[in-house]
Amino acid sequence: QGILERLDAGEIVIGDGGFVFALEKRGYVKAGPWTPEATVEHPEAVRQLHREFLRAGSSVLQTFTFYASEDKLENRGNYVAEKITCQKVNEAACDIAREVANEGDALVAGGVSQTPSYLSCKDKAEVKAVFRKQLDVFMKKNVDFLIAEYFEHVEEAVWAVEVLKESGKPVAATMCIGPEGDMHGVPPGQCAVQLVKAGASIVGVNCHFDPNTALETVKLMKEGLQAAKLKAHLMSQPLAFHTPDCGKQGFIDLPEFPFALEPRIVTRWDVQNYARKAYDLGIRYIGGCCGFEPYHIRAIAEELAPERGFLPEASEKHGSWGDSLSMHTKPWVRARARKEYWENLKPASGRPYCPSMSKPDGWGVTKGARELMQQKEATSEQQLKELFQKQK
Amino acid sequence: QGILERLDAGEIVIGDGGFVFALEKRGYVKAGPWTPEATVEHPEAVRQLHREFLRAGSSVLQTFTFYASEDKLENRGNYVAEKITCQKVNEAACDIAREVANEGDALVAGGVSQTPSYLSCKDKAEVKAVFRKQLDVFMKKNVDFLIAEYFEHVEEAVWAVEVLKESGKPVAATMCIGPEGDMHGVPPGQCAVQLVKAGASIVGVNCHFDPNTALETVKLMKEGLQAAKLKAHLMSQPLAFHTPDCGKQGFIDLPEFPFALEPRIVTRWDVQNYARKAYDLGIRYIGGCCGFEPYHIRAIAEELAPERGFLPEASEKHGSWGDSLSMHTKPWVRARARKEYWENLKPASGRPYCPSMSKPDGWGVTKGARELMQQKEATSEQQLKELFQKQK
Amino acid sequence: QGILERLDAGEIVIGDGGFVFALEKRGYVKAGPWTPEATVEHPEAVRQLHREFLRAGSSVLQTFTFYASEDKLENRGNYVAEKITCQKVNEAACDIAREVANEGDALVAGGVSQTPSYLSCKDKAEVKAVFRKQLDVFMKKNVDFLIAEYFEHVEEAVWAVEVLKESGKPVAATMCIGPEGDMHGVPPGQCAVQLVKAGASIVGVNCHFDPNTALETVKLMKEGLQAAKLKAHLMSQPLAFHTPDCGKQGFIDLPEFPFALEPRIVTRWDVQNYARKAYDLGIRYIGGCCGFEPYHIRAIAEELAPERGFLPEASEKHGSWGDSLSMHTKPWVRARARKEYWENLKPASGRPYCPSMSKPDGWGVTKGARELMQQKEATSEQQLKELFQKQK
Amino acid sequence: QGILERLDAGEIVIGDGGFVFALEKRGYVKAGPWTPEATVEHPEAVRQLHREFLRAGSSVLQTFTFYASEDKLENRGNYVAEKITCQKVNEAACDIAREVANEGDALVAGGVSQTPSYLSCKDKAEVKAVFRKQLDVFMKKNVDFLIAEYFEHVEEAVWAVEVLKESGKPVAATMCIGPEGDMHGVPPGQCAVQLVKAGASIVGVNCHFDPNTALETVKLMKEGLQAAKLKAHLMSQPLAFHTPDCGKQGFIDLPEFPFALEPRIVTRWDVQNYARKAYDLGIRYIGGCCGFEPYHIRAIAEELAPERGFLPEASEKHGSWGDSLSMHTKPWVRARARKEYWENLKPASGRPYCPSMSKPDGWGVTKGARELMQQKEATSEQQLKELFQKQK
Repeated sequence: QGILERLDAGEIVIGDGGFVFALEKRGYVKAGPWTPEATVEHPEAVRQLHREFLRAGSSVLQTFTFYASEDKLENRGNYVAEKITCQKVNEAACDIAREVANEGDALVAGGVSQTPSYLSCKDKAEVKAVFRKQLDVFMKKNVDFLIAEYFEHVEEAVWAVEVLKESGKPVAATMCIGPEGDMHGVPPGQCAVQLVKAGASIVGVNCHFDPNTALETVKLMKEGLQAAKLKAHLMSQPLAFHTPDCGKQGFIDLPEFPFALEPRIVTRWDVQNYARKAYDLGIRYIGGCCGFEPYHIRAIAEELAPERGFLPEASEKHGSWGDSLSMHTKPWVRARARKEYWENLKPASGRPYCPSMSKPDGWGVTKGARELMQQKEATSEQQLKELFQKQK
Repeated sequence: QGILERLDAGEIVIGDGGFVFALEKRGYVKAGPWTPEATVEHPEAVRQLHREFLRAGSSVLQTFTFYASEDKLENRGNYVAEKITCQKVNEAACDIAREVANEGDALVAGGVSQTPSYLSCKDKAEVKAVFRKQLDVFMKKNVDFLIAEYFEHVEEAVWAVEVLKESGKPVAATMCIGPEGDMHGVPPGQCAVQLVKAGASIVGVNCHFDPNTALETVKLMKEGLQAAKLKAHLMSQPLAFHTPDCGKQGFIDLPEFPFALEPRIVTRWDVQNYARKAYDLGIRYIGGCCGFEPYHIRAIAEELAPERGFLPEASEKHGSWGDSLSMHTKPWVRARARKEYWENLKPASGRPYCPSMSKPDGWGVTKGARELMQQKEATSEQQLKELFQKQK
Repeated sequence: QGILERLDAGEIVIGDGGFVFALEKRGYVKAGPWTPEATVEHPEAVRQLHREFLRAGSSVLQTFTFYASEDKLENRGNYVAEKITCQKVNEAACDIAREVANEGDALVAGGVSQTPSYLSCKDKAEVKAVFRKQLDVFMKKNVDFLIAEYFEHVEEAVWAVEVLKESGKPVAATMCIGPEGDMHGVPPGQCAVQLVKAGASIVGVNCHFDPNTALETVKLMKEGLQAAKLKAHLMSQPLAFHTPDCGKQGFIDLPEFPFALEPRIVTRWDVQNYARKAYDLGIRYIGGCCGFEPYHIRAIAEELAPERGFLPEASEKHGSWGDSLSMHTKPWVRARARKEYWENLKPASGRPYCPSMSKPDGWGVTKGARELMQQKEATSEQQLKELFQKQK
Repeated sequence: QGILERLDAGEIVIGDGGFVFALEKRGYVKAGPWTPEATVEHPEAVRQLHREFLRAGSSVLQTFTFYASEDKLENRGNYVAEKITCQKVNEAACDIAREVANEGDALVAGGVSQTPSYLSCKDKAEVKAVFRKQLDVFMKKNVDFLIAEYFEHVEEAVWAVEVLKESGKPVAATMCIGPEGDMHGVPPGQCAVQLVKAGASIVGVNCHFDPNTALETVKLMKEGLQAAKLKAHLMSQPLAFHTPDCGKQGFIDLPEFPFALEPRIVTRWDVQNYARKAYDLGIRYIGGCCGFEPYHIRAIAEELAPERGFLPEASEKHGSWGDSLSMHTKPWVRARARKEYWENLKPASGRPYCPSMSKPDGWGVTKGARELMQQKEATSEQQLKELFQKQK
């Protein structure tokens, strides 16, 4: 059954977690470029991560094609060996995802994300051509459906959806925005409306913000669609980091990004809480993005097991709500084998010299300068320095 | 070259990270029992983790035989399918480790750890028989050297070393103790002396405490050996969790153990700091235990690259001290591409409703009761309840 | 010169600090009732506090008549000896304030605040009669101007202003509301407009919120007045407690209120920051409420000394920005004798087991129930219990 | 009845709080010099503070003669008007204390503290002459007993005790040291022994450390006396600031000292806990030092009211354990009117950008340099700069 059949039937679809962050920690992706050449270089590592998500309960395996557009890969050319072409990266990603999906009952989704072409002000035709190149591979490899994700500008997201719709396959679209809306100031409700009008059957958010903020944003999208009398399924794939303190562009501006985010990692119990709240809000495509490890995805599947009627395979290695501690020899550890304990625990950081919140960087910048910088990926070294000087 | 040749030549040996915690998050190990039946059930997952550590710079791959003694596996019988025998688990562990070690230049170490037999007061002969059973497999599979690790009582550790020494192979021995010493009150210096006298060529600590505390303990061991005019190589494989607030038995008593330790996870920069301090203290076998992921091991290898003369393979996907951010489009993110930034950052937890430290559980228990509980793994349900009542 | 002459001439008027909190700590006011019978019982203590504020730079001494309306004092009858009548309390307050004001160049302001009569739904005439009783004393004692302060409902505040205006003296009016507006949902801008229309020449906020929140609210008031093309002077007398985490009714709902607010107390540097921001916002009557001690008021006077052209008397015992440490024998303490040090310091709480933020109580209560409770000071014991049960 | 009669009879003697910190906040003492010329300049302010402590339950009023030795006052000459001589300051202090003591049942204690003469290496005779000058005033004014307090070196404290003993009056001696002992490394137990041998009838600690640390130190003193078979009454007057993070010289090295200590201020409930623990340890002279306000002293008196059989006068304005909230209109505030609530509350700081602990300054300094600096109050500007340079 396809993604829309499942969702239309009221099924809960569980997404997968964050590949670039997980594989960065495993040694296969470089922070900064965040490109997926590992599909060619180390397919076994990508395959294993897919397997873990499948086992944890993912109903969808996304091809590991994040930032795999040709312009991005070339842009990061110094990181990618010559022979690792855009085509090869995307093809390998499809093959690996399909191979693992076949081990279970999962769908394969081909994914595109925002492009340097758009940020450097290329025109609509040029940007669409970039997406089309990836789509060609997805069609050749016959993925089950398509996802346009991680867009900061609804304009570009709409272009992506339009291209993906040419395929005739179902299209989902998620933006990496918060309640304040996209980088041009379009509010979430309006973004959702534009995406659905462009052809997306599923809309929502991914990345950049923590689960609570993500749900707030999806709520605004839902309200926007209702006001416009449009119908679409809702989707949410947030960070697995607590980011109550971040600004409009999310966790990238936090001083801890990307190498000191550890204290912000959400627990499995935080994720169960998120899954329940997402479900209550009417979201039926529930997954994660950066920071979501297999055990986080399992937590979604376990929280919603009563509704779904089954547990994921990986739950054979996990007792519900700490249940596996009930045999511990120490009575005080045994006392942790219950829901109330973990639900109410306020976990300590073990870091008494650290604060609980940060001021995001770049806040001194004028709004105009921030947006300029945002739009100008191609800005020269010199210009950037000047802008940075100005902001100080 | 064997482990002792390397250490005697002044080489820095980098250990690997924590298998049970990493594989728990990946969905292959159950928290509570923490047993390694995954070597039989899901060898590909174990193999992949070994590979990641190898790639990250590990000079040693430990067989994934933690808690793989027969008495422990039987004890946890309900978790292990009938046909997954002790012998099979240990053999598979050796095979997988050797397979991956051969992909690089790593040694394979067979490992034993503390047993339920000792805790339930079995006698010396019985406990030794348990270790001998695992040793038989290690000999058959011809591991390169042996590690007795995760012992809370030096008496049992000495028995383990004595058994392992029968093999004629080099033996390393690490205890999961802090500066206060073992559960019977033997101080670290004395523990080290007893272990060396029993035949260990390498001594130190693993697990239970954070890097800072671990180094404090190894320092006491070093002083004990110097006072006794004994020579041995030093070894340290601590937690990757900040635990300034834990008591004598380490992180197990912390309220966050084991399902809400996320805010305590150390950053790669914390690990670089640890590696440097370990090196300065004269430790030459430097690795990690629970919580150490491949990128943490890589951080050891990167910090000590000047001394070792080379970087690990996985550093092709990692810029030193955030260097890979130097091409970022946002100037304030580019500004993070330097050592001073990450060294001085005090990372926020994003959890303003949480404290920075916890009171360990079980502190109200009288010392006698705690030790009794510690010694009595076999204590009946009823007795435990009574003890727990008494302590409240 | 009267208050309006001063403000009209562009002078900065510095208010005083919080009497009930300061005198509670000194042993003369009971938390809970917060009534000012100390004016009769211990005039020397009240006099001394007035003197300290005068010395710290207060341009206005408010009569200590907070909660000194007859209905409030009677309500708390069990706390007040029979002979301490409303009249006596108010008269003594006027006498003490005038006596101290005459020692310097300060004005005396007679103050009224919200009444139990209003909360128990007495009608306009009845409530006005309560205010009029206090006003009679203020007229007899010839205070310089009048303040209606600490009102949660603009309706009652307007009634108070109307009564006070009967005197012909200038009237200031402050509400203890935040950016969300009054307890009936009237937004700050509208509250300001109503108060000015009722006759207030000075409007703003006092109590319930920290300086930052207070300024946000006054900003909304300012914008409301501008939109309505009304003119009035602005006034701000916030808490000296950090309350970023409180809800609509301010610090009373915080779990720490009123006996564990210590960790939230603002530093003198926080106050200098507040004074500057208040000034920049156009506020010219700048003081404090609960928690403001004499040294906090001095901090306002010192921050604005360049604009005012003089320092307060108490600055003879205070070096600007830690200057008095410049003679310290320890170099690292001497290094604290500079503005940058104190401006940038993030002071530690010394409480590693405590969080940085709290969830306000009473948030589970439905909005209706909250407002009901708010309105019903006279609600019987039984009703309160039922409401509380319902909210849980 | 004299101090010794009271203590010998098993009575609990309650000390007073911290004058220099309280009067600094009221505007009468300058931080840095911390000298008590207010006894002459503003006797009404000193008198009022004495009264508040008396009312809060103090059994002893200490003359406000802290740092009132002639060498100190001269040293700070620029702060003190010419005619405010050492003699006048001390005489006024005695007169004020006696006047207030006569309003109740309190004793007056004349106090001396460490001198610049000692720190600048003057000899025994010279230092003793300094103490004798103050003692002359105390004898003339006939104080009830004498306290040598705030000594960092036991050698100087012994000299002070020897001088005070010449008077024939009872002598108490407290040092501002922690468990690590005095600045020359003499452990607390030995300090206590030397002080008792020199003639002190009461020994203990004051200032520099929080209540918990103070009690630890007194415990060591008690053990030292027991080992030496000496008898003396125990006394404790700690800070009212949480300082778990400070080093050997206490709160002075904390970055927050002295102008940002607010978040560290202890609550009344912390004080009740301290009073109980002090009592259980056998301490019978229980008071406070810097940071202790009247309500903190009242908390001691309330906690020990069952043992003493009466409440202090100021308790007429204080309900036990929040009892005065039991009439509050909001049920969730009423719910705070009980012991368990306040005992278990972990108060938030309202400062999410601040840490919970600080690194004390001056820790990079070598031990030798620190001690040198400590000993050399007279060190020239230039020398200090050099030392400071060296330490960096």
